[in-house]
Amino acid sequence: MEKISPNVIRRLPRYYRYLVELEEAGEAKVSSSRMSAEMGLNASQIRRDLNCFGGFGQQGYGYSVSNLKKEIMRILGMDKSYNMIIVGAGRIGQALMGYQSFSAEGFHAVDIFDSDEKKIGTNVAGRDVLSTRELSAYLKAHTVDIAIICTPKEAAQQTADLLVSYGLTAIWNFAPVDVAVRRGVAVENVHLSDSLYVLSYKKANV
Amino acid sequence: MEKISPNVIRRLPRYYRYLVELEEAGEAKVSSSRMSAEMGLNASQIRRDLNCFGGFGQQGYGYSVSNLKKEIMRILGMDKSYNMIIVGAGRIGQALMGYQSFSAEGFHAVDIFDSDEKKIGTNVAGRDVLSTRELSAYLKAHTVDIAIICTPKEAAQQTADLLVSYGLTAIWNFAPVDVAVRRGVAVENVHLSDSLYVLSYKKANV
Repeated sequence: MEKISPNVIRRLPRYYRYLVELEEAGEAKVSSSRMSAEMGLNASQIRRDLNCFGGFGQQGYGYSVSNLKKEIMRILGMDKSYNMIIVGAGRIGQALMGYQSFSAEGFHAVDIFDSDEKKIGTNVAGRDVLSTRELSAYLKAHTVDIAIICTPKEAAQQTADLLVSYGLTAIWNFAPVDVAVRRGVAVENVHLSDSLYVLSYKKANV
Repeated sequence: MEKISPNVIRRLPRYYRYLVELEEAGEAKVSSSRMSAEMGLNASQIRRDLNCFGGFGQQGYGYSVSNLKKEIMRILGMDKSYNMIIVGAGRIGQALMGYQSFSAEGFHAVDIFDSDEKKIGTNVAGRDVLSTRELSAYLKAHTVDIAIICTPKEAAQQTADLLVSYGLTAIWNFAPVDVAVRRGVAVENVHLSDSLYVLSYKKANV
């Protein structure tokens, strides 16, 4: 498969969500023009995006909803199962630990860690919070695919460095600061506030 | 001010975060080429983006960090203060209610509502959870700028419709389904899982 542009990859989850809705509504086929009207994307961009992965549409006949959904899931790696750990048992970490919809997609938050003695041993979504001092031993004994960083801003980079030194190759970072990682490690920095700022812009400009 | 493209608006929070870091590091000036190198964006795109708002840079002298930051804050409406309510006192709603960094930027989560009798009256981040039945009276008595929807998927659209019917003009939606609103209402649909899917793609392709 040729290298796909990051912008295309970032649109794939939107296609996926849209296709899930179509499937739930019992639709078997969808045309790029319908996708365009309902998703608010340019129809030729949709065709270009989907052509990156080979043709699953016949011109004029539309795409098979289930095939297209399956192919997007495969490209995004959603056809696999992932064990995730959370570092930081604050509000965001606790919320993610209990968030059922990730698990339904194959992303399982299995354990949660904190360095605060007061939090260690408390129960979060059915699991006891473990000490970050146990991380090294834990990662030797368990297969972990993704680590979610939910620490305060100040501890985020150090936590990322530690996780990478223990062999983690995928980090989902919710601390409100970007973390940097070496080549070969995947990182996604989430900035909840960015969409809040865009909302406040829209509010003044709708 | 001329109409600014949504793509430019979506990049502004990134510029803002970068400028905050520069300011904290004591930097007074920054060039578009340095921004380009450190932010991973094309330098001419940065210049085009920032020129949308008039020139605050002199060619060859760089931008004033504090002026540029202030101007971006003004454009995004971050120079104002916002009262926010949260509808849905589940894990995500509770996490957002206690998330201090929004408050530091002028976005204040003041009250939280739920329709579940077991949650009403419980304490979340220092506030008693109110009943969604009180929403109408509450909104007549209080100024609310933004409503945050943290309900289950099934209740999200109905909640949005209700809030809009009560006069709310800005909705930040965390339910895992897009809500539709009429013209004149600003909405931002957050999909936490999208960045998780992109991460799983990156993990397989780094």
